[in-house]
Amino acid sequence: MKISNDSQTLTAQQLLEHWQGHRSLTRRVIEAFPDDKLFTHSVGGMRPFAELALEMLGMTTPTMEGVVTRTWPTYSPAEKPDSKQGLLAMWDKATVELNALWPQIPEGRFQEDDKAFGMWAGKVHWILLYIIDNEIHHRGQGYVYLRSLGIEPPHFWER
Amino acid sequence: MKISNDSQTLTAQQLLEHWQGHRSLTRRVIEAFPDDKLFTHSVGGMRPFAELALEMLGMTTPTMEGVVTRTWPTYSPAEKPDSKQGLLAMWDKATVELNALWPQIPEGRFQEDDKAFGMWAGKVHWILLYIIDNEIHHRGQGYVYLRSLGIEPPHFWER
Repeated sequence: MKISNDSQTLTAQQLLEHWQGHRSLTRRVIEAFPDDKLFTHSVGGMRPFAELALEMLGMTTPTMEGVVTRTWPTYSPAEKPDSKQGLLAMWDKATVELNALWPQIPEGRFQEDDKAFGMWAGKVHWILLYIIDNEIHHRGQGYVYLRSLGIEPPHFWER
Repeated sequence: MKISNDSQTLTAQQLLEHWQGHRSLTRRVIEAFPDDKLFTHSVGGMRPFAELALEMLGMTTPTMEGVVTRTWPTYSPAEKPDSKQGLLAMWDKATVELNALWPQIPEGRFQEDDKAFGMWAGKVHWILLYIIDNEIHHRGQGYVYLRSLGIEPPHFWER
């Protein structure tokens, strides 16, 4: 017997592990930057990696709040910390918040239509994948920044 | 009622659309490169974007064959074409192959354990997400290459 269009692919717990696995890798990319370069280095006029990480942080917990409560805040990047250690502490706080909010998602919610931050319309599973993919996309940029600094990035397959 | 660990997130058809949506964006990134730069330009000693795209192509149809048949070939990147048009033709061929192979996936297969290309062990849904994420990751590098050439990449949110 073959799959149908409606066959299921991965569970809620597997999607959470997928996201946190990527977040764990992104944390190691943040760590791999020298303290100053994290906030200043860029290629091709793009944003430094700290700004990309602050975009991710501005989306992580706020997205989960929107998914859980069906009420969305306005999007804004997280506030800039004054050091790499400060950024890592913000990252770890979001990790705990994500784990705490995840089990509060209402049953059936992944297939509901919604508009993330009042702007991006799609089903809730699509919104969550969008946030995860956005992180992978920007982290790929971070790999180029690191290489251009002569720094070996963490392995992509380690989560 | 809240979700449980086993709640379902997205269907087979939605996962296919997710993948093909990303592939459509990657195709536009290939198109955005000038013909020569596609095969030669790099930042930080990394591979030119054509080589990254050939890695993706070496994974797309072969992964689907492994998922459908449970028999894996050895991994190798796709053979280098002699032009951007040649690469785009290979991309379009894989698009058709992916659509044709997808409905042949055996029911229940997304939760089976397997070893992609005899090397990467995980459940089949994890293997598929890995291949998709690998494309997003390398395409993010392509965005930096384009910016460093002064070229505006396609919007990340357009699929």
